[in-house]
Amino acid sequence: MKCLVTGAAGFLGSHLSETLVGMGHTVVGLDDLSGGYAENVPTGVQFVQATILDFDRLNKLFAEEQFDYVYHLAAYAAEGLSHFIKRFNYMNNVVGSMNLINAAVNHAVKCFVFTSSIAVYGEGRTPMREDMIPMPTDSYGIAKYTVEQELASSHHMFGLDYVIFRPHNVYGERQNLGDPYRNVVGIFMNQIMQGKPLSVFGDGTQQRAFSYAGDIVGGIARSPEVPAARNRIFNIGADTPYTVNELAQVCCEVMGAPVNINHLPAREEVKVAYSDHTLAKEILDVNPQTTLRDGLQRVANWAKQHGPMQGTPFSAIEVYKNMPPSWQKLVAAQEK
Amino acid sequence: MKCLVTGAAGFLGSHLSETLVGMGHTVVGLDDLSGGYAENVPTGVQFVQATILDFDRLNKLFAEEQFDYVYHLAAYAAEGLSHFIKRFNYMNNVVGSMNLINAAVNHAVKCFVFTSSIAVYGEGRTPMREDMIPMPTDSYGIAKYTVEQELASSHHMFGLDYVIFRPHNVYGERQNLGDPYRNVVGIFMNQIMQGKPLSVFGDGTQQRAFSYAGDIVGGIARSPEVPAARNRIFNIGADTPYTVNELAQVCCEVMGAPVNINHLPAREEVKVAYSDHTLAKEILDVNPQTTLRDGLQRVANWAKQHGPMQGTPFSAIEVYKNMPPSWQKLVAAQEK
Repeated sequence: MKCLVTGAAGFLGSHLSETLVGMGHTVVGLDDLSGGYAENVPTGVQFVQATILDFDRLNKLFAEEQFDYVYHLAAYAAEGLSHFIKRFNYMNNVVGSMNLINAAVNHAVKCFVFTSSIAVYGEGRTPMREDMIPMPTDSYGIAKYTVEQELASSHHMFGLDYVIFRPHNVYGERQNLGDPYRNVVGIFMNQIMQGKPLSVFGDGTQQRAFSYAGDIVGGIARSPEVPAARNRIFNIGADTPYTVNELAQVCCEVMGAPVNINHLPAREEVKVAYSDHTLAKEILDVNPQTTLRDGLQRVANWAKQHGPMQGTPFSAIEVYKNMPPSWQKLVAAQEK
Repeated sequence: MKCLVTGAAGFLGSHLSETLVGMGHTVVGLDDLSGGYAENVPTGVQFVQATILDFDRLNKLFAEEQFDYVYHLAAYAAEGLSHFIKRFNYMNNVVGSMNLINAAVNHAVKCFVFTSSIAVYGEGRTPMREDMIPMPTDSYGIAKYTVEQELASSHHMFGLDYVIFRPHNVYGERQNLGDPYRNVVGIFMNQIMQGKPLSVFGDGTQQRAFSYAGDIVGGIARSPEVPAARNRIFNIGADTPYTVNELAQVCCEVMGAPVNINHLPAREEVKVAYSDHTLAKEILDVNPQTTLRDGLQRVANWAKQHGPMQGTPFSAIEVYKNMPPSWQKLVAAQEK
């Protein structure tokens, strides 16, 4: 099958592309390299550097390649920051997705696989189950829910088949260590390598079920070939929630560093998140087995090889009001 | 109070602007004239021709004018067509709205009034009540729901007060008669004046509670000054649903024309829609009294004075698959 993976130079996209190549598929990887790295694109993937906002380019690509499956992973997944970059959030995460859905309808794609987010559930809804009606509370979650609704509508209206995944705090080798706004595991590893204290918002008792990428990409990759998975939504990720304090502790242990935490003022975020994964287990045979310690040890080994990253923080902030002070400092430093 | 009305050259926006001027407010009216007409902008309104997508222009305008209230009505409200113009729908109806919400937060607007739509409810939810969780099924309704969620989030995050209205099939004097894709009353009046049969999708038994604009603009205008209305959602419009066949009949009667209906193949749309208006009655004292016949008679008198309109149909169709054949013909005629 011929597959398009958007966000193929990103962390999860690169793992998925590698898995698809391993399954014998022909893979075209698309990425604008705004958050990903060309070195992440696996061997055997035909790489196209382009943004999903360039619909002329997308239309040409779809016409030329006649994709069977589209795996749409490209996104700027900075949930906490999304309040302050609403316009960017909707351009990137919704308008870009509409370009891909339009192209998929116009070029008869057989299945559209979309990575949504547990952010669609909102606050106080644990264990999160796929049959709950989403009540997102931040711009990132609202945007992801918008695309989910569009896929249901496009299936009904145009017969476009889809599979939606709601992953849960995914981490792993090749993750971006240099973005100060997103992915707590990457932020912690980078801070440890730079000898800095780990930034924890609030008291660190907020809970997440950190999920190892290697445990979930297989299920995402094979989902279009599982008839019972078509036009359904799946939570995907680890079952066990850990506090951010526990995560910080294990990160320091696997990196062989002393535990040094800098507690920042609490920010607006969901307190406790964990999902029910019965559906993904039953229908897609996804059964994450990697313990948090084992997964983090692998990331630590990779991170030490790679070294710290100096990312350029996202600069086009639209609203500064009520931004966490640590982020205001980042922006001020950048503006100097 | 200083007010901004977006879509002020549009049909509902022009009535609202007139009401606000009558209440003694200072009114700036913004419109890109894509669907509205400069002649609709009432005397006493300072008119700015600009699109809500031009955020630099909006920021300057907000900085200069320091608005107290924003009434955001600008939209391309073509529900049935929205499936085929997803990108345009999200640019215009969501990204444009984010520009305004950002500017409202950045410039401390006191209340943001937004006209959403009954399209957020979806199919089979009559009588539609504000406490139902929206389940929109078309791109227009999904976009409106997205903005509603953003307003709730922005209130929580930034303290931006809002009032949301979900109007119900509004018609009245000054409505656009020349857009073949939206507003059935305008389409019927224009077809009667051109001696054409009235286009009815399907058997015409679909039901809507057609609402006279003059009955609802007062409630929208005064809503920011009613403390109990802040941060709430209101259905607004007439109580009694009529079939599209009944509407066609009355339109012909008030225009003094024979009834001549052209039944087209049914299109994808909600079959029956009517709303519970208890909240708007109780809190905003909105109590529509104009009968369908009286309201349509007024539109007929205005339409005869104005004459038929030759609109340029929306041209940037993104997906042609499963478009109603009558619309495909419109597009084909335009491409010649």
